[in-house]
Amino acid sequence: MSKYISKKYSGLTPYTPGEQPKERKYIKLNTNESPYPPSVRATEAAARAALGLELYSDPEAKLLNEKIAEVCAVEPECVLATNGSDEILNFAFMAFCDSERGAIFPDVTYGFYPVFAELNGVPYETVALREDFSIDVDAFCNVGKTVFIANPNAPTGIALGLDEIERIVASNQESVVVIDEAYVDFGGESAIPLTKKYKNLLVTQTFSKSRSMAGARLGFGVACPELISDLNMIKYSTNPYNVNSMTMAAGLGALSDEDYTRSNCRKVIESREFAADELKALGFEMTDSAANFLFVRHPKIDGGELYSRLREKGILVRHFSADRIAQYNRITVGSREQMEALVCALREILNALEA
Amino acid sequence: MSKYISKKYSGLTPYTPGEQPKERKYIKLNTNESPYPPSVRATEAAARAALGLELYSDPEAKLLNEKIAEVCAVEPECVLATNGSDEILNFAFMAFCDSERGAIFPDVTYGFYPVFAELNGVPYETVALREDFSIDVDAFCNVGKTVFIANPNAPTGIALGLDEIERIVASNQESVVVIDEAYVDFGGESAIPLTKKYKNLLVTQTFSKSRSMAGARLGFGVACPELISDLNMIKYSTNPYNVNSMTMAAGLGALSDEDYTRSNCRKVIESREFAADELKALGFEMTDSAANFLFVRHPKIDGGELYSRLREKGILVRHFSADRIAQYNRITVGSREQMEALVCALREILNALEA
Repeated sequence: MSKYISKKYSGLTPYTPGEQPKERKYIKLNTNESPYPPSVRATEAAARAALGLELYSDPEAKLLNEKIAEVCAVEPECVLATNGSDEILNFAFMAFCDSERGAIFPDVTYGFYPVFAELNGVPYETVALREDFSIDVDAFCNVGKTVFIANPNAPTGIALGLDEIERIVASNQESVVVIDEAYVDFGGESAIPLTKKYKNLLVTQTFSKSRSMAGARLGFGVACPELISDLNMIKYSTNPYNVNSMTMAAGLGALSDEDYTRSNCRKVIESREFAADELKALGFEMTDSAANFLFVRHPKIDGGELYSRLREKGILVRHFSADRIAQYNRITVGSREQMEALVCALREILNALEA
Repeated sequence: MSKYISKKYSGLTPYTPGEQPKERKYIKLNTNESPYPPSVRATEAAARAALGLELYSDPEAKLLNEKIAEVCAVEPECVLATNGSDEILNFAFMAFCDSERGAIFPDVTYGFYPVFAELNGVPYETVALREDFSIDVDAFCNVGKTVFIANPNAPTGIALGLDEIERIVASNQESVVVIDEAYVDFGGESAIPLTKKYKNLLVTQTFSKSRSMAGARLGFGVACPELISDLNMIKYSTNPYNVNSMTMAAGLGALSDEDYTRSNCRKVIESREFAADELKALGFEMTDSAANFLFVRHPKIDGGELYSRLREKGILVRHFSADRIAQYNRITVGSREQMEALVCALREILNALEA
């Protein structure tokens, strides 16, 4: 850090994104990307948009917001598109938290929440997941803080039911509840319909996973018009043209091809069930994942060690060093072929232990 | 605003971007876009990148930063690419200002600076431009605040010389000086070489204007590695994948086609000189613009009135309501044909006044 940096960031530890190695071709199961390419309608629309890049993108993202609204069965004024869902999560920390109104989230969840809190000078409290890594719903009721819950949760993949989400939202009507549904399309149930009933609910989603658009950076939030208006105020004070024209066009293209998205999600779910069965047969323990990843440990090998062995074999997974989950690895569910390669590599690693 | 919004934003007035009207086809001279399409290398590279959107973009933007560094004749660790230059300007307000270290900028300049200051709770001081709209360089020397100067300035188009910039930077070595060079390619002189000499200088540029990529959202900063490291800490705490893959590819494509950029800049400069001469012949007064816009007023017609008359005739320009510049309009320099249409419309408007 230079001597010029503001003192307010002295305690800030930035988020560490998953590796994007360039030196070698890996089977990349570390950042929950889709194994399938984006819809042809998305790529073609993006290529057409590239021809007109000399003009600014629409700061209102009107067509895109309307299409998202249609797909989500809400009104367009209930939608805000952002530069990935990280952007709208940061906007939510900015808008709905401050030094007086703190945040609360599980101790094991998306690792960016504490970073956003630190960045914005927001005091935060974490609630320990239960022993089985499930979220203690009661601990998030009547808390008087802004609640952030990933559903399904990351990196556990465990989903709360809509009744449980509603209990949290209904009990916290004096503060905002943010439900981060990055992984909802792989087995969760979206809380978007509840945004019509509750003024304090913000649901965020992303095009990065189920719509194969991680590289395009497109996320969005759905909430009542008043919350969206607050978030728009932050957007127009930060970066009014936050979503570029190619991404907007790609998003529209992807949303016009929902059959493709659903079909890819089904394939990922099938791969997940296949991989889960195979890994259990190898002695792995895991949470019950409703996401496009598995969260696994093996009693015979240390989590960090397993990560390294897989890496040597050309398979990248994600290992987190936090104590409580250091024995686990988060493995993205890729294609059936990738999962077969994973199972094969894990079998070799385990066999080598016994040799 | 909802009841949930943080009180810290009670005084926040968001930035108002220029109109992007959809109801009618205008000659669009209101947001300083290029009249020329992006380089074919940019659009082709973007279309190729769209095919691989299922993978995250490189959070380090390694290839792009290296290419920017090459073109700017600096080291790659001196470069940070962002989602438009608005993003790096906001990062600079975040990193190098706070409630104790305020900001200082001219009273007439890019209208986003006071918004960034308000957003980040940064007290700021403005220094009045001189009567002729030139920047009072001495007033920015030895100020003990973080300095933001657009060079050429907006919306005046007037450029400071490199010796004047250096005087400001050298006299403020205890605080950061940000030189915002959005318009530098149309007649200004870049301060990038000074970043090798001064640890407190951050120069920002954009691909929106001279490289015809406003819709792609790509900006960057150049500074010593320590300042770039500070800004990266903010980036990794905000949105690590801030630049999407298509924009990265388009940026690389554009930078491999510098002849095209230079040729377009020459054409814009020729159009500017043509339009300036014609407008002066019609009785307009204007600043000496080194940018891709003209800042003009006419003694016989009110600024707001002129804006409206042009709009009726299908020509959009930018009018700012601030007292000091309310008699002016900022007119983007488009193609020769667009400038001819502008001159024709202005002549009609002035003739109608006399009728």
